[in-house]
Amino acid sequence: MSSSISIGSISLSVFGESHGTAIGAVIDNLPAGEELDLERIYGFMSRRAPKKDGTSTMRGETDMPEIISGFYKGKTTGEALCAVIKNNDHHSSDYESIFGLARPGHADYTGFLRYKGANDPRGGGHFSGRLTAPLVFLGAVCEQLLEKRGVTTAAHIYSVGNERDLPFDSVSVSAKCLREVKTRYLPVLNPDSDIKMRSVINNAKKALDSVGGIIECCSVGFPAGFGSPIFDGIENRISQLVFGIPAIKGIEFGAGFKAAEMNGSENNDEFYAENGEIKTRTNNAGGILGGISNGMPIIFRVAVKPTPSIARSQNTVNFIKKENAVMEIKGRHDPCIVPRAVPCVEAAMNIALMSYFS
Amino acid sequence: MSSSISIGSISLSVFGESHGTAIGAVIDNLPAGEELDLERIYGFMSRRAPKKDGTSTMRGETDMPEIISGFYKGKTTGEALCAVIKNNDHHSSDYESIFGLARPGHADYTGFLRYKGANDPRGGGHFSGRLTAPLVFLGAVCEQLLEKRGVTTAAHIYSVGNERDLPFDSVSVSAKCLREVKTRYLPVLNPDSDIKMRSVINNAKKALDSVGGIIECCSVGFPAGFGSPIFDGIENRISQLVFGIPAIKGIEFGAGFKAAEMNGSENNDEFYAENGEIKTRTNNAGGILGGISNGMPIIFRVAVKPTPSIARSQNTVNFIKKENAVMEIKGRHDPCIVPRAVPCVEAAMNIALMSYFS
Amino acid sequence: MSSSISIGSISLSVFGESHGTAIGAVIDNLPAGEELDLERIYGFMSRRAPKKDGTSTMRGETDMPEIISGFYKGKTTGEALCAVIKNNDHHSSDYESIFGLARPGHADYTGFLRYKGANDPRGGGHFSGRLTAPLVFLGAVCEQLLEKRGVTTAAHIYSVGNERDLPFDSVSVSAKCLREVKTRYLPVLNPDSDIKMRSVINNAKKALDSVGGIIECCSVGFPAGFGSPIFDGIENRISQLVFGIPAIKGIEFGAGFKAAEMNGSENNDEFYAENGEIKTRTNNAGGILGGISNGMPIIFRVAVKPTPSIARSQNTVNFIKKENAVMEIKGRHDPCIVPRAVPCVEAAMNIALMSYFS
Amino acid sequence: MSSSISIGSISLSVFGESHGTAIGAVIDNLPAGEELDLERIYGFMSRRAPKKDGTSTMRGETDMPEIISGFYKGKTTGEALCAVIKNNDHHSSDYESIFGLARPGHADYTGFLRYKGANDPRGGGHFSGRLTAPLVFLGAVCEQLLEKRGVTTAAHIYSVGNERDLPFDSVSVSAKCLREVKTRYLPVLNPDSDIKMRSVINNAKKALDSVGGIIECCSVGFPAGFGSPIFDGIENRISQLVFGIPAIKGIEFGAGFKAAEMNGSENNDEFYAENGEIKTRTNNAGGILGGISNGMPIIFRVAVKPTPSIARSQNTVNFIKKENAVMEIKGRHDPCIVPRAVPCVEAAMNIALMSYFS
Repeated sequence: MSSSISIGSISLSVFGESHGTAIGAVIDNLPAGEELDLERIYGFMSRRAPKKDGTSTMRGETDMPEIISGFYKGKTTGEALCAVIKNNDHHSSDYESIFGLARPGHADYTGFLRYKGANDPRGGGHFSGRLTAPLVFLGAVCEQLLEKRGVTTAAHIYSVGNERDLPFDSVSVSAKCLREVKTRYLPVLNPDSDIKMRSVINNAKKALDSVGGIIECCSVGFPAGFGSPIFDGIENRISQLVFGIPAIKGIEFGAGFKAAEMNGSENNDEFYAENGEIKTRTNNAGGILGGISNGMPIIFRVAVKPTPSIARSQNTVNFIKKENAVMEIKGRHDPCIVPRAVPCVEAAMNIALMSYFS
Repeated sequence: MSSSISIGSISLSVFGESHGTAIGAVIDNLPAGEELDLERIYGFMSRRAPKKDGTSTMRGETDMPEIISGFYKGKTTGEALCAVIKNNDHHSSDYESIFGLARPGHADYTGFLRYKGANDPRGGGHFSGRLTAPLVFLGAVCEQLLEKRGVTTAAHIYSVGNERDLPFDSVSVSAKCLREVKTRYLPVLNPDSDIKMRSVINNAKKALDSVGGIIECCSVGFPAGFGSPIFDGIENRISQLVFGIPAIKGIEFGAGFKAAEMNGSENNDEFYAENGEIKTRTNNAGGILGGISNGMPIIFRVAVKPTPSIARSQNTVNFIKKENAVMEIKGRHDPCIVPRAVPCVEAAMNIALMSYFS
Repeated sequence: MSSSISIGSISLSVFGESHGTAIGAVIDNLPAGEELDLERIYGFMSRRAPKKDGTSTMRGETDMPEIISGFYKGKTTGEALCAVIKNNDHHSSDYESIFGLARPGHADYTGFLRYKGANDPRGGGHFSGRLTAPLVFLGAVCEQLLEKRGVTTAAHIYSVGNERDLPFDSVSVSAKCLREVKTRYLPVLNPDSDIKMRSVINNAKKALDSVGGIIECCSVGFPAGFGSPIFDGIENRISQLVFGIPAIKGIEFGAGFKAAEMNGSENNDEFYAENGEIKTRTNNAGGILGGISNGMPIIFRVAVKPTPSIARSQNTVNFIKKENAVMEIKGRHDPCIVPRAVPCVEAAMNIALMSYFS
Repeated sequence: MSSSISIGSISLSVFGESHGTAIGAVIDNLPAGEELDLERIYGFMSRRAPKKDGTSTMRGETDMPEIISGFYKGKTTGEALCAVIKNNDHHSSDYESIFGLARPGHADYTGFLRYKGANDPRGGGHFSGRLTAPLVFLGAVCEQLLEKRGVTTAAHIYSVGNERDLPFDSVSVSAKCLREVKTRYLPVLNPDSDIKMRSVINNAKKALDSVGGIIECCSVGFPAGFGSPIFDGIENRISQLVFGIPAIKGIEFGAGFKAAEMNGSENNDEFYAENGEIKTRTNNAGGILGGISNGMPIIFRVAVKPTPSIARSQNTVNFIKKENAVMEIKGRHDPCIVPRAVPCVEAAMNIALMSYFS
């Protein structure tokens, strides 16, 4: 509950506040004796770090996790693995002057109600996007465990504003293609999208505004037959984790909302047998039927809302005085969080799929 | 897990197979001493029953639940409430002849793998849409408990194929409007949509095909300050339940996927204070910020895929022989399950919101 | 929570009230495709039925469960298995006349507070020992699944009042011995105990009183290496289930409270290797070290309090009027519930151990 | 699961290994805005620290927890509270020389099997009694929250070997008495017990041996009407936590195993009304009926096995070579862990009771 979750045989707990001492995560019941390459974990996490090209905030975060338990002689022990990430670049004064003012699109007001004013409001506190760092750490751990089980996951920027990338080929996307897109600075499939999306982001920035987007995530190699109907299907597990990422406002699997406009004859994925394997010719199901994997790529897309922190002056309220107010949000903020959210979404997929192997 | 779930302080368990003895549900930890009007429960459930106008299957289901525990002298006891719904209109032979054939879009193949061939395949077994009846029962129970707490929920058909209804007014929708739409045979806001959607459905039927759609669900009166950040927000709870309804392939809250195309200045809901109350002028957040309710209507939409059972001949496989095959699905099937899915989606919302009051 | 529990990958839900329509249980996530011999389940459950020899109540309970889901062609489907047991011998009037009177040793008063007076008080309602019937059903199911995995469990009456049976040989008890004790009408190891215990029970009955006892439970064949340290050890799982049986007031594993009087050199079980197997020469640990099985028999004992319902007049209160009162409990009651609790305790062990195989 | 647990609305996670970087705990969903006096927490934790009088090990542990999240301006935020305790006095070489040797009474062998040899064996790793420090931290936090709700808890040494202290007066024990016993160096009720128990412990030490004991724990002021029947009663919650303390081999509530020797007329606690309050004249139920508190003191006792680490030479096996072996355990070990286990047991009670208020 809240920042703890049990999913399959795994338990997760994410803790910390943006401007507190540290943030971190505990994951319990991973398989024992699994080697972890820490450099690769740091590499995965650095994909979430602020971009140096102006598309994201310049707040310097080193964000290197220290594993303090559950890891011995380079391997998982099978017991609770805890990693802590120190906070070290506080500009808390930026935030304290605005206490009581509800930043539009943020949880200042709802958090105040929920926690009776006792939560740490600095930098969004526990609601901060910074809390995705421990999630990404866990996703980076699971990525390596999944790889040994033949599963490869990647996400790319499907759209920024109205600018669209190519979609993954939902039938024949390869592990190689997935591994490749993860190496790109802006993870897109169509090289042209890179320039166009940067331009959309820079325009938003110049306009003292921000812009949202869509992320598409795909896994290949996940075996058929995992999952469950009703409340514990693959969709349930993924969506429960994905909505743990602030700013996600929607998720769709396979054809998703497009399926709502289709006829059954069009949406049904025709099965066929080939060399003793069963596949489908299309993949509108996103690799999931009845909550269970069918062996095809698992694919979903999520909607990322535009960064709520914008430089423009905004109308709002002081929720303590219950008065109307006008505010300007100081500090540095990503004009578009979509690029940094890509590894977060991958992390959610990795954790969800790894939960079937423990 | 699987067909059991813990959500807040509530535990649910849904059991049964389409052509078995009975289906049903257990819900544990509801508040004690809450009156339940059984006639209203039956009324709610009858909205899920097959429509008599040709837009849905003609399989006669009485589907009246018998409450066998947790209910005493007209009130909840606070202990596990169990309801059983007998199955009584089996045409199992329709299905047995097709064993081994994977109906496209169905879980025959994935269920076979998951349960090593031991699950009851008749009528889809535990994967059947019939298993939404116990979910709707639980939603009908929660509807009455929520009403006493000032919360009103309704869903309507937002679209069928390309035919769209009007959306709920996400800022000023009233409880009265919500109560009204629930009384309609086809629950739509624009009377014209009724005729047009029937036509879309009938055309699909004539074409031996089916059609999907979108359902929009809204609750008013839910107090601000409920929910949690990260893994146990309102979005997490709703989506975990909503993906318990077969055929749902996507969910979006508030502006949802539209938010991905917006700028922050557009998507941020401006707060204002009025008579000591805090509201927002728009409701792109769907009433949820940081996983916590902000007092505005809670709104989401779900994508319902077209009924996978269609009368046309389809290419598929025999997954036991691992051979290609052609099949025709016999029996009577809804050309569009969207109308019958409306109370299912309402049920998911009701259960999710009620979980905050127990 | 309450009457629902998740243990390992299994979820259980027990529902019903003593004088309601029916009682029952749902168990989710058992392995699929496991044959179940219903006759053996009935046989197991009949061991919980009232004894015909005067040592227990004469209330006629047929208590035969009807499996309504999760069971197909003689095998588990792997989906939620639900069984319902009808109630059919109500003497509710016996109880209604005493509403407001707290039967000493019963949960009438605490249940009234907990459920705000809305719970069904007849026959103890949801607190009744009758609710162990669904638990025993689940234990009987798990017994068969465990047997196929080489695990045999039995419990015997270790004591009634001050009359003690022989203990299980905690080092060398055999599956054969365990299977045998289950066939006995009064399950004791020393034939003399049978007569002596009957006499203790009959004396209590004649004195319009009741008597408590201790049950010892043992499993052999459970493989070494299952379990976990801290909160999810074998002791944690067993005790969580065992305290689901009303009247259990204590549990001890291996030497248990005796260990508290021992020196370490005495209590430590010396390991030795024999034919490539590792064993211990004593079994004070009860087969569990660090929450994990060590391959030796798993042994625990539970304290069963004397039946609180006794025929004598007792001082008590009317908790509605908050006045002192005197009451006589009418109806037929077991002078000693220990014999009927034996299969309940076995059931708890079976479910706990089976939770490691799913 | 394993080192994570959900209990009521609280989630706990305990992490770390004895000789790793650090140990710690996360607790989620405590009430927000609760003041915590850190000095009192340190005071509570120091009761678990090694005694300076020779009755326990001399390993120097400062064990001061650093709260790194969930605590802001002296109050709980309501979000995940994480505390980390650094490890800093390693003599790992003491342990590495004995790898493969199963210390009798320890989890070396079972842990090796469970974690496929990948767990950190130094100092017992995750199985170490040191892991009770984070549990005690959580108990110290809950103590303060309970105090504001009128609940006082204390435990005392009920016995060491055959030397018994006086029991708590289970009917009329006062909060003052409980607060007092916590201030004593050896927490006993009868001052004579202090000297006698020290003597028992010192004798064990001289004999290169160790000795076990019983701890009795009591809470007063916990309101009547909290808890649930079947699987989520107060006994279930307490025992689930208590068996998280290594070395606990049994638990009994109220009269416990003594109840097994009683008649019902003796064991039943007679109710009476006094000044509008309902009480019982005896408290064999330990304050719990049907899993629910009845307003009387909540009392339980636990059996603590003698420290398995003893200085004597012991027969055992090398579980890697599967050969018999003889070993001497080097290092400093408590001849009796009972005194240090007292605050651990209190912690389990505090967490269990606090779980009803969140």
